Amino acid sequence: MKTNAYAAQNATTSLSPFSFQRRDVGQHDVQIEILYCGVCHSDLHTVRGEWGGTTYPCVPGHEIVGRVVKVGAHVEKFKEGDTAGVGCMVDSCRTCANCKEDLEQFCEKGTIFTYNSPEKQTGGTTFGGYSDSIVVDEAFVLHIPQNLDLAATAPLLCAGITTYSPLRHNNVSKGQKVGVVGLGGLGHMAVKLAKGFGAHVVVFTTSSNKVEDALRLGADEVVNSKNADEMKKHLNSFHFILDTVSAQHDINAYLLLLKRDGNLTQVGVPAEPLPLQVGSLIFGRRSLSGSLIGGIKETQEMLDFCGEHNITSDIELIPIQNINEAYDRLLKSDVKYRFVIDMASLKQAL
Amino acid sequence: MKTNAYAAQNATTSLSPFSFQRRDVGQHDVQIEILYCGVCHSDLHTVRGEWGGTTYPCVPGHEIVGRVVKVGAHVEKFKEGDTAGVGCMVDSCRTCANCKEDLEQFCEKGTIFTYNSPEKQTGGTTFGGYSDSIVVDEAFVLHIPQNLDLAATAPLLCAGITTYSPLRHNNVSKGQKVGVVGLGGLGHMAVKLAKGFGAHVVVFTTSSNKVEDALRLGADEVVNSKNADEMKKHLNSFHFILDTVSAQHDINAYLLLLKRDGNLTQVGVPAEPLPLQVGSLIFGRRSLSGSLIGGIKETQEMLDFCGEHNITSDIELIPIQNINEAYDRLLKSDVKYRFVIDMASLKQAL
Repeated sequence: MKTNAYAAQNATTSLSPFSFQRRDVGQHDVQIEILYCGVCHSDLHTVRGEWGGTTYPCVPGHEIVGRVVKVGAHVEKFKEGDTAGVGCMVDSCRTCANCKEDLEQFCEKGTIFTYNSPEKQTGGTTFGGYSDSIVVDEAFVLHIPQNLDLAATAPLLCAGITTYSPLRHNNVSKGQKVGVVGLGGLGHMAVKLAKGFGAHVVVFTTSSNKVEDALRLGADEVVNSKNADEMKKHLNSFHFILDTVSAQHDINAYLLLLKRDGNLTQVGVPAEPLPLQVGSLIFGRRSLSGSLIGGIKETQEMLDFCGEHNITSDIELIPIQNINEAYDRLLKSDVKYRFVIDMASLKQAL
Repeated sequence: MKTNAYAAQNATTSLSPFSFQRRDVGQHDVQIEILYCGVCHSDLHTVRGEWGGTTYPCVPGHEIVGRVVKVGAHVEKFKEGDTAGVGCMVDSCRTCANCKEDLEQFCEKGTIFTYNSPEKQTGGTTFGGYSDSIVVDEAFVLHIPQNLDLAATAPLLCAGITTYSPLRHNNVSKGQKVGVVGLGGLGHMAVKLAKGFGAHVVVFTTSSNKVEDALRLGADEVVNSKNADEMKKHLNSFHFILDTVSAQHDINAYLLLLKRDGNLTQVGVPAEPLPLQVGSLIFGRRSLSGSLIGGIKETQEMLDFCGEHNITSDIELIPIQNINEAYDRLLKSDVKYRFVIDMASLKQAL
């Protein structure tokens, strides 16, 4: 069916109105009327071709929340009228070892991402959530807890799972001291989730104007990471640190804050290599890991956890007509803490 | 008692004969007549002051094997005539969390190393194994399996445990594919131990003249890490990689060879930071760790394992008079694979 959207036509132009055909609803497919779509920094990287490999036109968006309007004959998990979510993935091979272990984000045949991936069913390219409708195999569609604000839930589909997964994988639990480096879209979710797990949460920031906000979001302590004396007080004391910073920074300073056998996981992807002092790892048998979103099963688990703990993202709701301005503000970290597009605005525009 | 040794008097002179007083044998002490002492690269770094903080005169040596000649009144584990070993540590606080967990190498009050550490009992500095005798609390003395060649066992006390500990900590076991980067003193032990655990062992080297030797030592495959095509064949295939290289090198190339959730552990300590591409960790949820020797309990476990599997180091036995030449050769990696000092030579010299 005809779908209205915003797309980038090449790496250098602004996003602008675009329409295309979604595939027909297959036997296992769910068609979702998109109500809200979060704005992730990956959207910006992709539309501007900063990661290479962007196919244009490109319709970004992978923090999708909406209402089921049609289901295929064999769909079992969803019915018309359900609220539903779609995150970063819409398909995978489902047969490799990683898929079998519910880690479709590491599909050995190549995860089918929500946008800018080859679409199995059509031979075209997947188009994301800056659009009024999407058709997805029910295996990659999530249930949204009824108590959560829908707009503020959208960012959980990427920012939420990206922080939930490493916290869970590292068994973050009650009484542990957990650090969060950087207070942006990912960092602010990490604070809420780590608090949800019962941890003592310390936020590291270089922006003094974020201190109050960090405490409001639930942080127990805030450390100015540029202040060597403040940092020194926390040496050898953290079970786990989640580093959400995608700019160049000194990870060694954070590694030294880990206890013996502590882990620091990076979810930000700096463009340039980070200089790693191996001694920071050797003394204390510490480890440094990476983590990428989470599998579908874990994403549902995260949504359910957020429902139970009433956790959503702090958002700024925008009409899609403001998306290019939002990108400019994103580059200046001028958002608390996630832009979400109100997709009703797409209808108004037409 | 008077002890003959070789010492460095400052950072720039050669090692030369030196004598000093060992403390009297205390109630929990064991006095060991040193028969063999391995030559570790740390000895060279310390005597030349390359790590800072060297107290002179410095008697290095922490791969000690010998015979018990005297025991204190309360010694329970050793008797006169036993063969015994001493590794990198001779004491620790024994009360901190790490000591209580048998990880004295991470003692929170500061591990007392076998040389160049403050000696509790005397207020002086510990002197190591380039000497004819040592007095050590029995809690830090190891039993040597009877079937092993004593000279070739000495390097197990540092090179052995440094490689055994991370292999064990990462649960290396039968059928797993394990990589060893660098074939030197540490690397050649890692090959033997990983084979002992039943792993499929792949050695990475840049020296074509080490291929034959790697296979002789038990490696199943040898990869020239400078050959991109060879490296590519091993992408996403390793459970675990032990990196023993202490020179600058591209760890990202090895991280990409790990399977999902695979770990690379560094035991070499490059002086300069290693450039780390975070993407190498994020795609595959891989991790990078450090490891430092092992605790006393694990060191005994390692020696017992080596006894059962008849594993020792490949050594070149030297008289202590050749130690300075040995250091020069060490810097050129001209040793297969560990120099061991025959301490009988110390008597001949006098």
